[in-house]
Amino acid sequence: MTATLTNQDRIERMRLAMEREKLDALVLRLPENVLLLSGYWPMLGICQLVFPREGRASVLIPDYYHEEAGPNLWEAEPRYYRFGVLGAPDPVEVTRAFLADAARGKGWKRVGYEGSFSLIAPAWQAAETLVPNETTRPFYQAAMGDVELIDAAALLQSERRCKTAFEIGKLTTAAEISCFGLELFQEMAGIGVSGVELAAAVEAAVMSRGIGYNGAQRVRAWAQVAGGPAETAMGFRMNEISTTRRLQNGDAALLELAVVADGFWADRTRVRVAGSPTDEQVRVFETLVRAQENAISAILPGVTGAMVDEAARSVLRDAGLEPHFPHITGHGLGFGYHESLPKMAPGSTDVLEEGMLTSVEPGVYYRPVGGFRVEDNVLVTRDGHQVLGEFPKALNSSASEPVVPAAARSRW
Amino acid sequence: MTATLTNQDRIERMRLAMEREKLDALVLRLPENVLLLSGYWPMLGICQLVFPREGRASVLIPDYYHEEAGPNLWEAEPRYYRFGVLGAPDPVEVTRAFLADAARGKGWKRVGYEGSFSLIAPAWQAAETLVPNETTRPFYQAAMGDVELIDAAALLQSERRCKTAFEIGKLTTAAEISCFGLELFQEMAGIGVSGVELAAAVEAAVMSRGIGYNGAQRVRAWAQVAGGPAETAMGFRMNEISTTRRLQNGDAALLELAVVADGFWADRTRVRVAGSPTDEQVRVFETLVRAQENAISAILPGVTGAMVDEAARSVLRDAGLEPHFPHITGHGLGFGYHESLPKMAPGSTDVLEEGMLTSVEPGVYYRPVGGFRVEDNVLVTRDGHQVLGEFPKALNSSASEPVVPAAARSRW
Repeated sequence: MTATLTNQDRIERMRLAMEREKLDALVLRLPENVLLLSGYWPMLGICQLVFPREGRASVLIPDYYHEEAGPNLWEAEPRYYRFGVLGAPDPVEVTRAFLADAARGKGWKRVGYEGSFSLIAPAWQAAETLVPNETTRPFYQAAMGDVELIDAAALLQSERRCKTAFEIGKLTTAAEISCFGLELFQEMAGIGVSGVELAAAVEAAVMSRGIGYNGAQRVRAWAQVAGGPAETAMGFRMNEISTTRRLQNGDAALLELAVVADGFWADRTRVRVAGSPTDEQVRVFETLVRAQENAISAILPGVTGAMVDEAARSVLRDAGLEPHFPHITGHGLGFGYHESLPKMAPGSTDVLEEGMLTSVEPGVYYRPVGGFRVEDNVLVTRDGHQVLGEFPKALNSSASEPVVPAAARSRW
Repeated sequence: MTATLTNQDRIERMRLAMEREKLDALVLRLPENVLLLSGYWPMLGICQLVFPREGRASVLIPDYYHEEAGPNLWEAEPRYYRFGVLGAPDPVEVTRAFLADAARGKGWKRVGYEGSFSLIAPAWQAAETLVPNETTRPFYQAAMGDVELIDAAALLQSERRCKTAFEIGKLTTAAEISCFGLELFQEMAGIGVSGVELAAAVEAAVMSRGIGYNGAQRVRAWAQVAGGPAETAMGFRMNEISTTRRLQNGDAALLELAVVADGFWADRTRVRVAGSPTDEQVRVFETLVRAQENAISAILPGVTGAMVDEAARSVLRDAGLEPHFPHITGHGLGFGYHESLPKMAPGSTDVLEEGMLTSVEPGVYYRPVGGFRVEDNVLVTRDGHQVLGEFPKALNSSASEPVVPAAARSRW
């Protein structure tokens, strides 16, 4: 195996996994999985991928996405169909015929599909997502005839855990784009501003500066900013809720930021204190940063998720802060905001492998200090780790200078 | 039946529908359906609603949403569980026990669930959605024992078609909040600005001005802005794609805007021309507005979707523009960006009823004029119709004065 996986490795590894599971083909329609095996991140309408163990993949796409799909497909052969206009054929019938064509004469016995995917990444348009449900399997069955349908969700989640060079490039772009949001948050999180204003401005910065950055075409952010001891000390509930409450002197402001760029995700957190932090806030923050950096330092192939978690937790324990760190240290991500592998948690036996991407996000939450968390996305490399989209960690602006990728700065 | 449905009517109508289908209970977990029958719009984690035909509904909620859930629940009794922290119980086991408790001793024979929901509204956090899949039914079965599980997707979609007074209030708030985005678009869509900048600014305006407006707590927008003849003349593909292309004199800019406020949706479109529109652009726009207003005028109880569609289409036909109007005139919405009932389309036999909400959105797309569409959300009232969140339609700024709800204006 080469140091970094190629797109061809992605195909070959998937085919090996399919061979192990005796699967002759995969039929996939969730945007995240179509992206995984074709390079195209679907938009609206049914987009159906057929990925055979032998021969070329094919993908059914609404025809008016021709311009977006064509240049991004690195593997599958596209088949376009008219969609969404008067007189267009029934897309369900089109999909049925496409599947029947793909299966005809192949002698497939076992076909994998997304039977038990439950926590899914949204489509880009994101106001609605077309999901597989209990009708999906009988639909596939009717279209493909005499095949046995096998739930391939676990296989897909497992194969997604290690990223290729192509994917790492895209994930790096997403992480760098997230820095536009972190930078804006850092500049703006001061006395008098509200969590809602911060969240809205962070999302706008990510979209307006992210689209076009390094070729990114479809970018969006979900930002939540909690402010003050009551809101942030609940930070462990994973999704802060932005409110109109305005930051006062000494308030912690906690930003949780999800960014998607062409289907690839970043998951970042930063905390600031408006005005002057107390000595205790400074101590908590500095300890937290040491805990995060200790966990990052522990990341390399062969290490377990429990070891990385303990590297963060032990620093907080030594400082007497462990009781205020109620959640896990990190989780896989990439094709989604959260992925099931690997998990950095007490007792996790997940073994880190080159190409895995994990969040590292210890947090400390108690009143009156408030909630503190820092989060970065860390790639497991051949002999260690690499933070994607490095960005400074500082409680207030006297302590640091924003760092933005030079390529981006020159655009503005 | 009173002129406007109450929350109690919502319950009673659902129970009548369940009686028709011989359903003893519904078990629901999609955020849009939990909202429908409880008043609470779920966030992360499993949120499971049990709605019996007799007796009070109950809903299982992660405990750290206590503050958000409690005041919003108008019907179901909450049961809270620890979630997302170390040492919390397995949420799947908690849900199983909750369902078993709910079913115990009730003698239920048939229970409805969301078997075939496929196009779903996102959770608020929206970076990921927990969806029912083919494992959901066996899970329910194991939890509730000897009941027959029935796919209730069609029943739910049907019952959602008419909105209650409470829901109309919330939908009006969402539509008014969408005006913040329309207003910003109207002000900003001029020569030199890009579609990406417009979309980012519109989304930020909706969030920052929407949260807190009329009590709204969780608000977000999805905006797409296409610009110029090539991008906008593809507007019929339903999701414009914002790019970094900057508007030039005479370019149409087409905004597609989805807004969600506490689980209730608005779907708006406006078009502007940067600089000076041509005579043909003015003619197309004025004809389009007449077509939209003619369709809106046609809306009242008893009319079919085909009649409303024809009211728009005939105006465009008379002006020779029908070949450039390739899509339907409108669709239901409310608990999602799009709902299956009612449809304003050629041949649609859907009959309008008081309390239905539909988009009305004719469009005209051809080069070099560009793509033009205007879209509003129209409530069917007892004897006619009402546009929610009225906002002016004008091709450029000389033609109109922005109208923003006074309550909102005073905030800034």
